[in-house]
Amino acid sequence: MQMGITSQEIFNSISQEIVNLPFPTSPAPLYQPMSYLLGHTGKRVRPVLAVLAYQACEGKEQDKMISASLALEMVHNFTLMHDDIMDQAPVRRGQPTVHIKWDVNTAILSGDALFALAYPQLITPFPEVAAQMVRFFTDVVVGVCEGQMEDMVMAQEPHVSIPEYIEMIRKKTAVLIGGALGLGAIAAQAKQPFVDALYQIGELMGTGFQLQDDLLDIYGDQTKFGKQPGGDIIENKKTYLLLRALEKSGRYQKETLLNWLQYQEDNSEKVKQIKSIYDELNIKSETSELIDNYYSRAQEKLNSLSDELSITELQVYMNHVFLREK
Amino acid sequence: MQMGITSQEIFNSISQEIVNLPFPTSPAPLYQPMSYLLGHTGKRVRPVLAVLAYQACEGKEQDKMISASLALEMVHNFTLMHDDIMDQAPVRRGQPTVHIKWDVNTAILSGDALFALAYPQLITPFPEVAAQMVRFFTDVVVGVCEGQMEDMVMAQEPHVSIPEYIEMIRKKTAVLIGGALGLGAIAAQAKQPFVDALYQIGELMGTGFQLQDDLLDIYGDQTKFGKQPGGDIIENKKTYLLLRALEKSGRYQKETLLNWLQYQEDNSEKVKQIKSIYDELNIKSETSELIDNYYSRAQEKLNSLSDELSITELQVYMNHVFLREK
Repeated sequence: MQMGITSQEIFNSISQEIVNLPFPTSPAPLYQPMSYLLGHTGKRVRPVLAVLAYQACEGKEQDKMISASLALEMVHNFTLMHDDIMDQAPVRRGQPTVHIKWDVNTAILSGDALFALAYPQLITPFPEVAAQMVRFFTDVVVGVCEGQMEDMVMAQEPHVSIPEYIEMIRKKTAVLIGGALGLGAIAAQAKQPFVDALYQIGELMGTGFQLQDDLLDIYGDQTKFGKQPGGDIIENKKTYLLLRALEKSGRYQKETLLNWLQYQEDNSEKVKQIKSIYDELNIKSETSELIDNYYSRAQEKLNSLSDELSITELQVYMNHVFLREK
Repeated sequence: MQMGITSQEIFNSISQEIVNLPFPTSPAPLYQPMSYLLGHTGKRVRPVLAVLAYQACEGKEQDKMISASLALEMVHNFTLMHDDIMDQAPVRRGQPTVHIKWDVNTAILSGDALFALAYPQLITPFPEVAAQMVRFFTDVVVGVCEGQMEDMVMAQEPHVSIPEYIEMIRKKTAVLIGGALGLGAIAAQAKQPFVDALYQIGELMGTGFQLQDDLLDIYGDQTKFGKQPGGDIIENKKTYLLLRALEKSGRYQKETLLNWLQYQEDNSEKVKQIKSIYDELNIKSETSELIDNYYSRAQEKLNSLSDELSITELQVYMNHVFLREK
């Protein structure tokens, strides 16, 4: 079993190559926002996962895969650029969003071109599997678009079921995590069952990760995560915690919840009261159990591949990235 | 020399297949705008050209090429969906634009997904040249994005040169016409010089076509084209006619032009006076000559391929579509 490069080395190479992407200089408003957004530091989780999956499947041309993996960071940033317009988000990773720093039209058009450029970035190093990669990649991106649309539709709906919510976060977040692993496997010309298994592992991990995001909003160590505590509660965001609380609550608790949902303002009393209902209903430990369930299924599935794939580095990385403090 | 199917048969097949594209039904706001916009009648010039170029290069699997060619109509409609947001256009082909009938967020996201779906549509029938098609197609789309960006930038600039203007319309309109012909040639596995030549023919034709659009706005037979006469003049749109008039005008004419450019309102006196300056400066016949120059170069280039390619049907079609009444 040949050892590949470590996740840290992969991250370093990706960070280097992202900065060196040969975007043209003109027209500047088309290309500058791409460099601006891609240049923000981040964990580059998706491209790192793609390279680790490629290595796990005995892919030997790491340089080619690192180049191809940038497509995942490009498409992730394209979705952020457009989602931030739709969500009217002023800040992303501590910096003004593209539609604020430039304008909405620039963010639409620069996002479009960034997405377009992701395709040749992905397939040029691996022309022998280009058609398969294009189909897989497109399914992933269309899934992300469906998730974003479902999220926007749900925000307007009075009643959202938990299965609907889980399906939405699966598409909006988890499909691209699964897609990163799947594309690494396709590039290594792994057999279809391995492509499918790695995709599913990413999807389970990604779903658990998004649920953990819901949990950390109110139960996380705020000094570590640097977000306003209870931001989701203040904004009346439909989260797993809220939907489950609405489902489990008795008449009085439900009335209190629905009453607070009439207001959207920065009110610490609102956060306090809704949190106390969550506590009464045991929502924290229920959510933790659900997250553990997703992570355990992902880990078991990954372990089951250990005889045939070189999963060690991928395993270490996934535990490091996804099993953050609850 | 084997005869292919006629452009009318190609058009009929494309119109049929566009309606039958297997879009999912949910989430409805993602997929309904695609069917809505693609369902509007149009000439389907880009996919028809792609199939005719494929036949000209002795491609024999017309059904496959018709399927692949839909990608050109999809990407064209994706650019319309996003351009109409940016240009705040309320109507397209006599119907409300997507961002008016639905909303801006829907038009952004539906456009994104439509663009994504164009890639597998294009390459699935021709996996053996998938990588080449993806690179070529992306270059074309990025060119269109650059053209749209340059158009938006120019609208804000006081001085635009004629070469800058021609370069903008080349990218915004002509690159996709050339791209359609080039992709047909690539699918037929034509040699690179034929791919290049067909691309260039489309680009020349497309540039002439856009200049003709500028001319018809004020000199066209309004009963045939159904647009408000002088709409470009009323909106102070930078057209070849205006830029050339500003370049050629004497001091008094220039002052009159610049004076009218201060106003943006539906004023028949404005149209009349600017038209009379165009007439004094002989702008109509100059523009006609320039258009003829583009068309002649395209036709000569196409004729020069007649020994090696089966250009007859393509020739007839291009003359029919592009040599509309001046």
